[in-house]
Formats: sequence, structure tokens, C-alpha cells
Amino acid sequence: MSIFTRTNLHINTRPVLEINLNKLLNNYKMLCEVIAPATPSAVVKDDAYGLDAAVVAKTLYEGANCYDFWVAHAVEGAKIAPQIPGAQINVLQGIGEDSLELFEQYQLTPVISSPEMFEFWKKHQISGIRPIIQIESGLNRLGFREADLQKLSRADLKMFSMVISHLACADEKDHFMNEYQLNTFNRLRHKYFAGLPASLSASDGAFLGADFCCNMVRLGAAMYGINTAPYRQNQMENVVTVKAPVLQITDLPKGQFVGYSATYRAATNRKIAIVSIGYGDGLPRSLSNVGKVFFAVKNKLHEARIIGRVSMDNVICDVTDIEQIKVGDYGYFVFDGYTLDDVARDASTISYELLSRLGKNTRFVRNYILK
Amino acid sequence: MSIFTRTNLHINTRPVLEINLNKLLNNYKMLCEVIAPATPSAVVKDDAYGLDAAVVAKTLYEGANCYDFWVAHAVEGAKIAPQIPGAQINVLQGIGEDSLELFEQYQLTPVISSPEMFEFWKKHQISGIRPIIQIESGLNRLGFREADLQKLSRADLKMFSMVISHLACADEKDHFMNEYQLNTFNRLRHKYFAGLPASLSASDGAFLGADFCCNMVRLGAAMYGINTAPYRQNQMENVVTVKAPVLQITDLPKGQFVGYSATYRAATNRKIAIVSIGYGDGLPRSLSNVGKVFFAVKNKLHEARIIGRVSMDNVICDVTDIEQIKVGDYGYFVFDGYTLDDVARDASTISYELLSRLGKNTRFVRNYILK
Repeated sequence: MSIFTRTNLHINTRPVLEINLNKLLNNYKMLCEVIAPATPSAVVKDDAYGLDAAVVAKTLYEGANCYDFWVAHAVEGAKIAPQIPGAQINVLQGIGEDSLELFEQYQLTPVISSPEMFEFWKKHQISGIRPIIQIESGLNRLGFREADLQKLSRADLKMFSMVISHLACADEKDHFMNEYQLNTFNRLRHKYFAGLPASLSASDGAFLGADFCCNMVRLGAAMYGINTAPYRQNQMENVVTVKAPVLQITDLPKGQFVGYSATYRAATNRKIAIVSIGYGDGLPRSLSNVGKVFFAVKNKLHEARIIGRVSMDNVICDVTDIEQIKVGDYGYFVFDGYTLDDVARDASTISYELLSRLGKNTRFVRNYILK
Repeated sequence: MSIFTRTNLHINTRPVLEINLNKLLNNYKMLCEVIAPATPSAVVKDDAYGLDAAVVAKTLYEGANCYDFWVAHAVEGAKIAPQIPGAQINVLQGIGEDSLELFEQYQLTPVISSPEMFEFWKKHQISGIRPIIQIESGLNRLGFREADLQKLSRADLKMFSMVISHLACADEKDHFMNEYQLNTFNRLRHKYFAGLPASLSASDGAFLGADFCCNMVRLGAAMYGINTAPYRQNQMENVVTVKAPVLQITDLPKGQFVGYSATYRAATNRKIAIVSIGYGDGLPRSLSNVGKVFFAVKNKLHEARIIGRVSMDNVICDVTDIEQIKVGDYGYFVFDGYTLDDVARDASTISYELLSRLGKNTRFVRNYILK
């Protein structure tokens, strides 16, 4: 639906989160072409960055034949499993006492990243499941170092179904770390896991070429519309729209202050709109006095500034120049014309964190668009 | 339970959010004494800042005879209503087409903040409910301005059960805005709503004296342990503990980089711990390279630094000086010794936003402590 659809006065109070699953599918399919012949897989951890992992996983399973999924925690795997019968669900944070039952119940596959966790696995193996091993290649996060690999027996090494690692700087095409990590990963996997399927790259690595794609790519952020190759124009379609209704339009006389701690003072008479969204809805407070909001009034898109501090439930916008704006109109905080990447930049963070925050509560009216 | 309770090696993967309801009750009762004889009420909007509004409301209702609650949205009121039969639930963002049914079903009381919303109310009045009116006193957020009040008829003015406003700078004891807002609020309410119960202050205003407490104070942030009077030592007890298990301990050789974009480089050989929590769990990414984590090892509390970027599911900590730390130990990210206020300061935000983020997902193991 066009954001220019105008209606008569309506009073609404809830912010709206719209997730366009058609565009998510388009992004996923486009990424599949980029990485071919590598096998695609979908990263739906953190509840699909807040978009509802059960909905996203089902959409990819039914609409794009995706059968390989990655979550961070077993509890996330348990949520999606009923939607994707027979698909493989890999759990990146691995297995422990607090998740063993879920692994058994939902036949989840753990990613084993430390010798201690491997010992745990050997004591609690699950019939029919062959774990994945993560090895360290330069990120210095989770994963077996070579010293750890050397301590594994031949039988140990044979227990794994896949070897993975993770890139640190793949969003910078020419960063020296990319080549360094690729070489380290290839050396270690050929030495210890010859012939085993391998996965090194997430969305950002997908654009670094076939060498980086190995056998499987873990597609996440880019699928959700984030530009994971910021050295060039974003080729993904925007998936997420966040809008919220104007609760009040009022005058702000010259000299008056706005918001907590009175951080904004009107130098001239202004007109302001109070909009029903705040950091409680995941809109970063760091947008205070710098964020943008867009209003579609009389078939024209108007840009407005957030003035004063973002509060928990409201933001205040300067709408002096938007003549016919009225109560009930919607302010657009994320949409095709001001994407997650744009908002994240203005909020001094990254799109990943922004998306992970938006929509993690029950106050949003959630609209899923599919076909 | 003491954080010094040591156990044998355990492998766990999930972060833990512990909410001490005894301390929350203590805080609430202490605040009740501060504001007496004003009537206390509890702010449980934003799902009680992420702590689960149903649990918090029930605790206050049963444990402290709290019968007046404030939420932002009707959908939040609907969640708590079954837990607190007969209590009054006021909805700060007001009423609209997208919430009318919930107001009727759960007998919620809307806060009316604009002439347009008042017109809506008059068309859709709910039997037995007398709305609250919000008037503007200097925050320049939601509320009737005097020009709006002048347009209300005598019958209109009689429809309300309470008049409220909200302070902008109450966390600064001597800020000129406090006196200005108090005077504005009192002038308007006596002129238009003589004799009507009034509420001006939230937690921060509670400490500004009896004049600011009026008939009712809306107790929120301070109840959750946040210091809303930062000009003096916090008198609240810490309610929230966030901890996460160490998944791996490993060497970081001199010269190597850590985390996304390689923002940390080891100047000497270090020992690092990879801990299972990240911004997907609400730990702000702005703690990258500056945040602190605490480990209780051998009956001593050790401070460690977050090094490199906070990622979605993990943080990496420098534990070089913590000799006997091992996989399965818990890192403490929020606790009595490093409170929400401390973390928020280090993350360049406020405790309100931090608390609102923590715990808004299903990955935490949630422990509620009561009696």
C-alpha cells in the first residue's frame, strides 16, 4: 500500500511494524544467485532480528526451499522447528546443561566451539545428530584454536558433519583480514577436516567471491534488507517499515523548551507533532535531536526532525513546514526512503543492532505482507 | 544466592536475567513513605521496563496494596488486568480506534491529551469510566495547552476524574524548569479543574518535596532500582541481575585482533573469555571496548574489560589477571556492584533505556525472586 493513501481523521495510538515477506524472499533468492553453487542457509537468530523467527523460517522454507537454518540458542530452534519439518537447525552458541533437552526434543544440531563443550557433547550425544565444529580464523571469538585441534583424536575429528568459521571484516572488501582469515580457515580445515563441508561466510562474505562462499553461506542481515556490502549501493530491497500515529499537533512558542532535560529550545515559533513511538519500541534514544521522521501529506513526502530527547513512548517532531499535517497521520521512521541503514547511521549504531531492537515488544501492531 | 557460590565445571549457554521482587517491593514501600500522604501508584509501561508487567503488577498489588497502575498502551493494560482484579489501570498514550475494544473489555481508563482524542472519547464513552486529562506544563510533549482548555465547556471539564502533567527536568533538583512547571500546573488545574485530584510527578519528582507530589505520584524507574535523583547517592536497592556463562577461555597472542572490524589489537599476550550475551540480549553495542564484566572467582570479585565490539550473541573479555577462571563461570553484567546506572553511564545512555532493552527476548533464563 502506498504511504500516500490519505484518509479522514482517525485516532490511533499504536506504532506499526510492517514486514514485507515478499521482499525478504526476493532478497534471499537474489543472494542464492550470488553465492551459487554454494548452498544457501538462513540465519534467523535473535528471533530473526526481532521479526519473528517462526514466521521468517516458514516463509523461507515454503517460498524458497530453504532447509538449513541457524539460530543462536536452542530455545530459538525450538520455536521454529514446528514450522519447518525435516529442516536442519544449527545452534551457534552450542549445547549445554540448560539446553540439552531442547536439542533432544527438536533434533537440533549444536555448533561445538570449545574443547569443554566437545567433552560435554561426547557425554550427551544425541542419536542421529552429527555436530558442527567452529574453528577460529582471526575474529578471536568462539572456536577451536589449532592447539585445541591438535588434541583431538582421529575419531574425534570424524564426529563432525561440517566445519565453520566467521569473518571479522567482510563488510570492507579490501580489508587485509579477509584474505588472512580465508587462508587460515582453508589451511586448518584441509589439514584437520579434509573433505568435510565448510562454511565461512555470512551475508557480508557472500559478496567477496566464490572462495569465501565454500560449501554453504549463512544468509542473515542482507536478507532482512541491510546493506552488508556498504562499499557499494545497497542491492537489497527494504523489508521493514516502522510508522507511528501523530497524537497531537500543537504550537511551540519561541523560547520554550522541548523534552527531558530541556535539550531543545525553540529559536522561533514552531509547530510540533507528538508521535506515539519511543525507545520502549526500539527507536534508539541516540536519535534525540538528530533523527528524521517522514510524513506523506498531500502526495508529497515531507522530512521532519526529531527535536528534544526521544522518550520511552513518544517523540516530538518539528513539522512547522508541513502545512496540512493532522492528528492521526502516520510518521514514518523506517521505510524504503529512509532505511534501516539510514536510521542506524543517524543513531550512531549499525543496522543489525537497530533491527534487533525494533519490534521486540507487544505494543507494535504487526503486519506481515506476503503475496 | 551469593555470586560467590562456586561449583564444578558446568556447561551452560544461556544468559540469565534475575529480578528480585523483594527488593522491588522494598523500593516501592520506601517511595511510598517519601511521598506520603500522597497516594502511590505504579508505572508498569513498556512491559514494566521489560521485566514483565504482569508479574510486577501482581507483586505490587498483593505485596504492597497497590491499586493504581499506569501503562502506555491499552495492550499493556490488557496483559496486567487479569492479575489485579478491581485495580485501576490508566493508559498514558490514550484511546483510539486501534484500542477501543481493549478499553471496553478490560475497563481501562484513558489519559486524554489532545482535543482530537477528547472528541473521539465523547463519541465512544465507556460506561463506568471517567477519563484522566493531561495538561502541558513545560515538557512540550502530550497534553492540553491553555488555548485548548479554554475551548472546553463546563460539562466537558466535569468529565474528568483526575488532572495530570509531567516534569521535564525533575532529576536535577535545582533546575529552573521544576518550579516553572509546578507553577504552571497549579495555575491551570486550579483554574480549570478546581478540587480535582492531581498528579504531576513520576519517580524523579517524588524527591522534590510535597508540593510536587500533589495527590498521586506515578512511581516507576526508582522502583526498578534506578537512581532518579542522581544528585545524591542512590537510595534504591538493585533489582536486576544479568549474568551470562563463559563459553570459552583462550589465549590471545600479542598482535592479534578481536571482534568485528578488528577494533582491538592485543599489545601483549592476553587471556580472553568469550561470554554468551550480546546486543541481541539488550546489552548495548556502545559498550564495545569500554564495558565492564565482573567474575566471582575464589571468593574475590574480579573486574574485566569488554574488548572489541559487542556482537549479537557474544562479548569478549580480557581475563588475563583472573587466574582460575574457567568455562561455565558466569560473567556479571548488571548486579549490586555494577548497577543499571553504572552500565548506562558506560554505555552513554540512561538506565531507563538500558532496562527497557534488557530481557525483551526469550533467550534469557528468567528467575524471579520473591520471599
